[in-house]
Amino acid sequence: MKAIPYGTRDFLPRDAELKIEIESKLARLFPSWGYDPIVTPTIEFTETLKDVDDSRIMKFCYNNRDVALRYEMTTPIARLVATRLKDSPMPLKLFYLANVFRYEQTQAGRQCEFYQAGAELMGQGSVAADAEILALAIKSLESVGLEDFSICLGQVEFARGLMEQNRIESKIQRAIERSIERHDLVALESIVDSLHLEKSAAGALKEIPLLHGKNLDRAYEIAGNDKSRRALDDLSEIRKLLESYGAADRIVFDLGIIRDFGYYTGMVFEAYTPELGMSIAGGGRYDRLLFDFGMACPATGFALGIDRVMLALKNSDRQKDLLISFASGKISEAIELATRLRSEGKNVELSLTAQTRDAAERSRSKKNFRELIYLE
Amino acid sequence: MKAIPYGTRDFLPRDAELKIEIESKLARLFPSWGYDPIVTPTIEFTETLKDVDDSRIMKFCYNNRDVALRYEMTTPIARLVATRLKDSPMPLKLFYLANVFRYEQTQAGRQCEFYQAGAELMGQGSVAADAEILALAIKSLESVGLEDFSICLGQVEFARGLMEQNRIESKIQRAIERSIERHDLVALESIVDSLHLEKSAAGALKEIPLLHGKNLDRAYEIAGNDKSRRALDDLSEIRKLLESYGAADRIVFDLGIIRDFGYYTGMVFEAYTPELGMSIAGGGRYDRLLFDFGMACPATGFALGIDRVMLALKNSDRQKDLLISFASGKISEAIELATRLRSEGKNVELSLTAQTRDAAERSRSKKNFRELIYLE
Repeated sequence: MKAIPYGTRDFLPRDAELKIEIESKLARLFPSWGYDPIVTPTIEFTETLKDVDDSRIMKFCYNNRDVALRYEMTTPIARLVATRLKDSPMPLKLFYLANVFRYEQTQAGRQCEFYQAGAELMGQGSVAADAEILALAIKSLESVGLEDFSICLGQVEFARGLMEQNRIESKIQRAIERSIERHDLVALESIVDSLHLEKSAAGALKEIPLLHGKNLDRAYEIAGNDKSRRALDDLSEIRKLLESYGAADRIVFDLGIIRDFGYYTGMVFEAYTPELGMSIAGGGRYDRLLFDFGMACPATGFALGIDRVMLALKNSDRQKDLLISFASGKISEAIELATRLRSEGKNVELSLTAQTRDAAERSRSKKNFRELIYLE
Repeated sequence: MKAIPYGTRDFLPRDAELKIEIESKLARLFPSWGYDPIVTPTIEFTETLKDVDDSRIMKFCYNNRDVALRYEMTTPIARLVATRLKDSPMPLKLFYLANVFRYEQTQAGRQCEFYQAGAELMGQGSVAADAEILALAIKSLESVGLEDFSICLGQVEFARGLMEQNRIESKIQRAIERSIERHDLVALESIVDSLHLEKSAAGALKEIPLLHGKNLDRAYEIAGNDKSRRALDDLSEIRKLLESYGAADRIVFDLGIIRDFGYYTGMVFEAYTPELGMSIAGGGRYDRLLFDFGMACPATGFALGIDRVMLALKNSDRQKDLLISFASGKISEAIELATRLRSEGKNVELSLTAQTRDAAERSRSKKNFRELIYLE
């Protein structure tokens, strides 16, 4: 009765303060870029959630229907845009702060319930939209206090072009993508070898996860088809626009980035800090997701993990402002003083029982207040 | 696939903005009174949630255990205080902003998933603690922009004293409390009549829901036992302390307020505005709840309904700041200008495609921006 469910957590005051501080900063940043907030239900009909690993969804029956705790926010927002916002002037720029739920092996930074902030830009297929989303993701991480991070930027069409060029059937394509996503070079090699391709074509496929760096020269060399070359041109243009945002230095190309949601159709990215062995933010272009809801609409977006940002930030010690305590008979005076100081913007805790000055000083020290006012 | 589950809602940008604005104001107010934030999981083990109507809990099986979406926040906080915070210096002052879930008949202001803010003060049995919670509830409602509201203040021990005085068995007590809670005077009369009490005793019980007003004179007249009289003395002292907070004018005594959680043990209250036919905030003292988690600890607290505050507030029209648009070839200049204006604190939306000045002006007007800057 005193425990909490697997993969969930309580935030004690210090962590909860940091979480609220991060969320407040982002809730100010997004509107300053023209993004409007939206809020969606914690539960969705299971049939609404797609392109996700079924074993990781938390499902149950509610009001005689199959529902699930939301797994991520992009699909609920696509649903909302394709229904109640479909007649809004495009492009739509939306943001959210939300908790999402995935059943998985827990570890530091991975919980079954976790917190995200993110932005979605709907109704724009241009590289300018992708560049804005990347620049906003970078600004988000900077605004919450992260300094040392980089953005690994890929394009799912690059690998798809290479696979189509070799007429690989779609089931095998999926297996190759999974091995690239997991950076499982051994699995990738064994799948590719089993296809008995020409040596240079096989070599190109095996090289995808290794195409990582500040330029795309090697990628252009092995891109033997239009789709892959267009994907690279896309990335070059995005990087160029990021120079105008003053954000291009953060970019490292990485054509092995594919992401684990099936809905991505163009550029994809993940943000990494040296402190954490997992991505702290990620996103990409998903031009077909809204089509599943009956609306043809290109879109791009990103999400950042609040819990992971908290792990990456060095959590500094906080002291509280002011404790007011009082001798017997002085409670009204103490209340009036607390009220006045609060109205002047101070954070004031009022002791609620009369106590000696010594006891009050002990409280101040135990509760880590900077200052004590004692009325006697 | 485009619908959302029964009793849930999407907040479109205008509502979502108002929700975030209300929550931000409260997230600043509570720390200014010395209250620390906490965050708990959305799901709890079903056995942790008690004193609630089982048919209204959303339950499911997770990781082979019975869990439920949290029904309210006081019990999860009691769990947290009795476990990970039990060695903290008392009193503990905590606040939360959270969504909670109750299966019920929906109507305006009543959803199955809804949003609350609240504060809990643990480790203080004094009227000073009750007065602080009431004053903070009042200040919360004022700080989010409500002006016209009052606090109906009762004490559950008043009715209990009258029932014990007449040796009414506990099952019947429960039925009487339910009829008082629902303001069902017909049911109350029929239960009381079936007990064949002395005429004045029966009259006193039937009068409980009618004891409503600025003073407690009539309540003192019918309080023929110590428990009921102590309950009234309690309320008198609380009201006196609220004068020091400048908040006493909000108080209307109402001994028919009992609240629908079984855990209340002392003062209880509900806040009402003329706009809404249901309470907008409520709370009270619950000195035995932490004992259920193995910790003897008096406590008092309140919650306010964010959705209901939103209904009560007149939602004023919002205009967005500034749209930057540009002619062909000017995107880099436009990005640099947007970046500079955002760093100066302006909210700036960047148009992402080159367009004519006329088209830009049409966008400005459709999207309700105050100002357009067009680069050519």
